[in-house]
Amino acid sequence: MDLSSIGEFGLIDRLKKRIFRPDRRVVVGIGDDAAVLRQSSEKLLLLTTDVLVERVHFDRRIQSYRQIGWRAMVASVSDVAAMGGEPGHALVSICLPADITVEQTEEVYDGLHSVAEEYGFSIVGGDTVSSPRDLVISVFLTGEVREENLMTRAAAQTEDLICVTGQLGGAQAGLVMLQSLKDKEKTPASAFPENEWQQVRDRHLWPRPRLREAQLLAREAGVHAMIDVSDGLAGEVGHIARQSGVGAEIWEQEIPVGQQTRRLAEHLGISPLDLALHGGEDFELVFTMAADQRRRILQAVTEETGTSIAVVGKVTAAQEGINIVSSQGDRIPLVAEGYRHF
Amino acid sequence: MDLSSIGEFGLIDRLKKRIFRPDRRVVVGIGDDAAVLRQSSEKLLLLTTDVLVERVHFDRRIQSYRQIGWRAMVASVSDVAAMGGEPGHALVSICLPADITVEQTEEVYDGLHSVAEEYGFSIVGGDTVSSPRDLVISVFLTGEVREENLMTRAAAQTEDLICVTGQLGGAQAGLVMLQSLKDKEKTPASAFPENEWQQVRDRHLWPRPRLREAQLLAREAGVHAMIDVSDGLAGEVGHIARQSGVGAEIWEQEIPVGQQTRRLAEHLGISPLDLALHGGEDFELVFTMAADQRRRILQAVTEETGTSIAVVGKVTAAQEGINIVSSQGDRIPLVAEGYRHF
Repeated sequence: MDLSSIGEFGLIDRLKKRIFRPDRRVVVGIGDDAAVLRQSSEKLLLLTTDVLVERVHFDRRIQSYRQIGWRAMVASVSDVAAMGGEPGHALVSICLPADITVEQTEEVYDGLHSVAEEYGFSIVGGDTVSSPRDLVISVFLTGEVREENLMTRAAAQTEDLICVTGQLGGAQAGLVMLQSLKDKEKTPASAFPENEWQQVRDRHLWPRPRLREAQLLAREAGVHAMIDVSDGLAGEVGHIARQSGVGAEIWEQEIPVGQQTRRLAEHLGISPLDLALHGGEDFELVFTMAADQRRRILQAVTEETGTSIAVVGKVTAAQEGINIVSSQGDRIPLVAEGYRHF
Repeated sequence: MDLSSIGEFGLIDRLKKRIFRPDRRVVVGIGDDAAVLRQSSEKLLLLTTDVLVERVHFDRRIQSYRQIGWRAMVASVSDVAAMGGEPGHALVSICLPADITVEQTEEVYDGLHSVAEEYGFSIVGGDTVSSPRDLVISVFLTGEVREENLMTRAAAQTEDLICVTGQLGGAQAGLVMLQSLKDKEKTPASAFPENEWQQVRDRHLWPRPRLREAQLLAREAGVHAMIDVSDGLAGEVGHIARQSGVGAEIWEQEIPVGQQTRRLAEHLGISPLDLALHGGEDFELVFTMAADQRRRILQAVTEETGTSIAVVGKVTAAQEGINIVSSQGDRIPLVAEGYRHF
């Protein structure tokens, strides 16, 4: 169905029904000049936004519309998680090119809404406009956090251990493989059996925010700084170091990269270490914690969530800079090389 | 200066300095995963978003970068105003094409920030990404409103008077004239003396939200429904009627169109009535109020702000539909013809 056959307000009516969730805090939802929410006063309000642009963040030839919507919302939930918060309410602005149908637009919203359903929050408004060429999705998400649980990038302390949840590099490996399958002449990628990289593919297509893990970590006084991984470990450790006024040392052999990611990296001729350090969108958490509480904190999170946590380095004095210690014991300055927008 | 010469984080550092405003409620501002705000509990929270897309909402050949930023922020402030609220905090996501320079990007933020300065709120975060072709600006704004002052589109009552602040049609007339000057072959537009359409031009280039007027109206118990004019009077009255479950009657001869707009419309061969009914982005307020409080309410607002208010029609029963009564006394069904995105 063409968008022009139902128009802007017809589209909004349809989308509104798809993304409705009962929520007692919503006084006015979609359809007025602004959404109106009842707030509790004990908590701090979090605000975050992520924008996804076609040809930059996603490719309609690789991802389904539902996956594009899912990914757009996950990025914001991951940001709220990294502050120790609980997602509150989302607005979605979408710029729709002329070649997109009503059904495809609804699939994008189904993806967005699935994340909201799974993590218990509502989409309460937004803006739908036309776009001359590219599909652009802009998500705004509020969140709440008790002041004592607030986590920032700026609170790392010298001698803290640096930790990572789950595994790194998978999302980027999956993306490279999907791209090479799309362009089969470039790489004989189809030679790699599908069941051997399915998990890695899903790290790119269906990323998951570490909301529960983040909330558990935020309650621990020994956890000091936290950030989510959107641009690779090197970049995120760099943000923590700069904003906390400290240095950092990363131990190469401790960086968690899964077996499927390693095998796929080998097949693609990419270094697994590069994927983990500079690959984007794993949405894992990087955090620093007091070394003497290591055992208790890691055990608490792993027992409750089943998510493994790796200790990958330590916080040093600022003047030591940010370094990686290789498996051979060499100390090399670490430079972030995440996706460069410009 | 090329964006690539300073990169994403260099750009964020520069923009951060330009848009800084001291704000005691900001616990964490730009530079973490989310902005963190201290909230008061007595008020409702408002959330709104507007996205501006190049070639759809603006034209870099007609508007300066500063004007584009100004316009993007005004749209959201006007939405918060229309709910009876006070702007709280803004996030800005911007998609930057490769041909835009650091200086031009800073001008966009200067425009955004000027609105924040003038209406007393802060920009506390956002996202900066690259765009394959078009400049896209997405503004997200929170606001606060006391529950007793909340204004929606859904509260109009039969027999209410329908009112409009200021004058209509100017923004659209200014846009059409600017477009025809850009393409001089089409119209001998330059024959029209500049000082005779300067005010109208500024209605398009420097629109102003009616924040103070909206707040005064919201405090009056006799004011029932409110909306801002982004798509012309016909569309906005239609939204109020549908969402309140009422009909409406608009009196053609009462619709306020300024002298400059009328003269420019004549020069351009457009009907001034069409501009007022279907022209976009005047950012005036349309509201309904109890007829018996007319004198007191209009006097209170006009004395305090100097803004004129016109009574342009009345709310009727739903089954009568939405009609316009022409100067000759004819009753014609009114159809909204605002900008069709698709």
